[in-house]
Amino acid sequence: MAHLLVIGGSDAGISAALGARERDARADITMVLEDRYPNYSICGLPFYLSGEVPDWRALAHRTLADIERLRIAVRLDTQAERIDPAAHTVWVHDPVEGRTPLTYDRLVIATGARPVRPAVAGMQQPGVFLLHSMDDSFRVHAWLTTQRPRRALIVGAGYIGLEMAEALTHRGLAVTLVERAMAPLPTVDAPLGARLAALFAERGVTVVSGVKVEQLQSVATGLRAQGDPGWEHVADMVLVVVGVRPETRLARTAGITPGQCGAIPVDRTMATGVPDIWAAGDCVETFHRLLERPTYLPLGTTAHKQGRVAGDNALGGRREFAGSLGTQVVKVFDRVVARTGLRDGEARAAGWDPLTVECTTWDHKAYYPGAAELTVRVTGDRRSGRLLGAQLLGPVRAAKRIDILATALYHAMTIEEIADLDLAYTPPVSSPWDPVQMAAQQWTRQGTL
Amino acid sequence: MAHLLVIGGSDAGISAALGARERDARADITMVLEDRYPNYSICGLPFYLSGEVPDWRALAHRTLADIERLRIAVRLDTQAERIDPAAHTVWVHDPVEGRTPLTYDRLVIATGARPVRPAVAGMQQPGVFLLHSMDDSFRVHAWLTTQRPRRALIVGAGYIGLEMAEALTHRGLAVTLVERAMAPLPTVDAPLGARLAALFAERGVTVVSGVKVEQLQSVATGLRAQGDPGWEHVADMVLVVVGVRPETRLARTAGITPGQCGAIPVDRTMATGVPDIWAAGDCVETFHRLLERPTYLPLGTTAHKQGRVAGDNALGGRREFAGSLGTQVVKVFDRVVARTGLRDGEARAAGWDPLTVECTTWDHKAYYPGAAELTVRVTGDRRSGRLLGAQLLGPVRAAKRIDILATALYHAMTIEEIADLDLAYTPPVSSPWDPVQMAAQQWTRQGTL
Repeated sequence: MAHLLVIGGSDAGISAALGARERDARADITMVLEDRYPNYSICGLPFYLSGEVPDWRALAHRTLADIERLRIAVRLDTQAERIDPAAHTVWVHDPVEGRTPLTYDRLVIATGARPVRPAVAGMQQPGVFLLHSMDDSFRVHAWLTTQRPRRALIVGAGYIGLEMAEALTHRGLAVTLVERAMAPLPTVDAPLGARLAALFAERGVTVVSGVKVEQLQSVATGLRAQGDPGWEHVADMVLVVVGVRPETRLARTAGITPGQCGAIPVDRTMATGVPDIWAAGDCVETFHRLLERPTYLPLGTTAHKQGRVAGDNALGGRREFAGSLGTQVVKVFDRVVARTGLRDGEARAAGWDPLTVECTTWDHKAYYPGAAELTVRVTGDRRSGRLLGAQLLGPVRAAKRIDILATALYHAMTIEEIADLDLAYTPPVSSPWDPVQMAAQQWTRQGTL
Repeated sequence: MAHLLVIGGSDAGISAALGARERDARADITMVLEDRYPNYSICGLPFYLSGEVPDWRALAHRTLADIERLRIAVRLDTQAERIDPAAHTVWVHDPVEGRTPLTYDRLVIATGARPVRPAVAGMQQPGVFLLHSMDDSFRVHAWLTTQRPRRALIVGAGYIGLEMAEALTHRGLAVTLVERAMAPLPTVDAPLGARLAALFAERGVTVVSGVKVEQLQSVATGLRAQGDPGWEHVADMVLVVVGVRPETRLARTAGITPGQCGAIPVDRTMATGVPDIWAAGDCVETFHRLLERPTYLPLGTTAHKQGRVAGDNALGGRREFAGSLGTQVVKVFDRVVARTGLRDGEARAAGWDPLTVECTTWDHKAYYPGAAELTVRVTGDRRSGRLLGAQLLGPVRAAKRIDILATALYHAMTIEEIADLDLAYTPPVSSPWDPVQMAAQQWTRQGTL
């Protein structure tokens, strides 16, 4: 009876264990966690910190009891330190037993990512926080409830930065969001970033773009941040959320060398090349379905898919990861911003001849009450007419429209063909040509001029 | 310079004229309407009658001026009576000039559908209405405002019946909805119909299923309806909305014989087979992308697509209609019901070995406030694993999820492959596996037992 060991208990780890259990009802499965929070939704942290989710326990996709009911043994507070692939052993350390060996027949590495700690002076001061783990969020929560800060500075206007700007505004803090790039959310096109900046301004959030924070300093009135070019701001707390890096330290001990993206190289079956070792999630390189090469795209959805593939294959399955399109969405107040596939510059760098067209219309028939503006940007290849990517900004209810385009991308559709899709219409939810089809039709007109 | 004549000015007619104009900037284009309302959204009538759209003029997708600005000549109040294909002439009749001939180089027939008038005694009485055209809706509106009815009976619980039940409830009437089938909305599976019936009951609408209305009679207290088996009800107005039939009378004069579905047979280019005559919209047979044969699916979305194909081809284009999946959605209070593709019985009749699985979950992460139940039903072929159809019932914001499945159907995906789609996730809008993927995974588990 095979013994599967999974290192990591977040999205990829739990999916590997569940996928393995689905493949083999009898296998021994052990999951090793460095903290006490298996299967927690780290995407949910901003909603706990906003106060919208009062009990942090609600963030768990599954409870420990749910997991153990599937006969998955869970070791909490256990650090995996070293893999000995020849001996099929992982050396772990926990506060009670100290250093001990765990043997395995098959191993899945799902060590995730760690937050980037930028070279900013004064990062160690009280009131300055990273935000990636449950423990991070408890530290932030404690500061919020005991210190009662009035002013928050958020460094980094990526997905987490935007969500935390909303979360802390929701909590009543005055929020300033500072970003090194020239607009918030640099992973979408600048015109959408500009709309986001306006949306934040309406909600009282100060957005500072094009500034690199260099120093944090305790002063009498709070924490003073200084940045380049010449910018200064004083707040009562600082959140530093400038991205993540793959956590590869454990994998290296098994002789695995990180790839060009800095993450663990795997094939489409999530095998690492070291016998009996698979890897999945934010620690690995992710096959991009359009680029047809490895990229680094740490996303919960991808971690779930890769984990399932790894766990299934580790116990004899023959799955392949279908590839990521980098589909993602973030809610900002009453709006969402979403993207899938490639942006113009990414497509050009990959050898396509891209054109990006933007179309703003109503998300449903204008005559029906409550219609909201929906902006769809479509990127396609002028030579082949192929859809390469899309972005949207609109009301929260419009979020899942990006999935129509993600499904189209999965099938390498041309943009012209999108108008042929038989999509649902009734005046309160859409138009006879859905907004994504209107954008596609506009691209077709402009792309064939 | 070609002269294109289009008979009909609703979705298919206007799309034909616009498609033709896009193909040829100089062509003569004339559109002939039997009423005075070009390009009106007949899908919008319930929202006018509910009072949510106070001005009926807002229902026009485009105004007459918009259309004429594209140099499309419009003849209002003009009945097309007879086509002489040899002479390339359509004889029309209008109140001013009487009967006159209109010649054409190319002709598009877009005569739409007419409402079914069931064999119910007493249909002619004041207070009994069909609802299909603008004029119908003016008659209903006049009755509502001058007679101030308190009780409405709606005969037929299809899409329009459901929408009118909500509309008249919204207006303050006590509504009874009576349907011959055993549940409302017989175009979706019974479990969803049962949920709809419960939803209506909660909102004060009486739903009567399994009753065939046979007689309407003026009595002292109002209009008495009697039905089989033994049912009786008195109301102040009666709406009879039991479906539509293709309007083929004009086409027949050109020697076109309706097909098995009773509608005008056309090929994928929307050509009728009679030289220089195309047809589109609710008057034609619609190619079904899954069944690969003609069906009758009168839908606004389809009419738009077919009209565009017909108009473009009439002026030299080479488009093909990609086929319908019968995708449709209806809003009922704060819920939507949607479907795409085939139902179990339809699939079986077509030679597949279908299995239908239902999955109810939250439309977004349960811990984020406001999560609502979303039911997804997935039908697939046990032999090939191919997706054949899907249905959903959930909050209004979930409507466009049916489009993910419609796009999957367009590409003949297997159900298992749906789990590979890279769909968007953030806790306020979905889960790491979107509900449509959860339903697909459940199908895969059950289908492969």
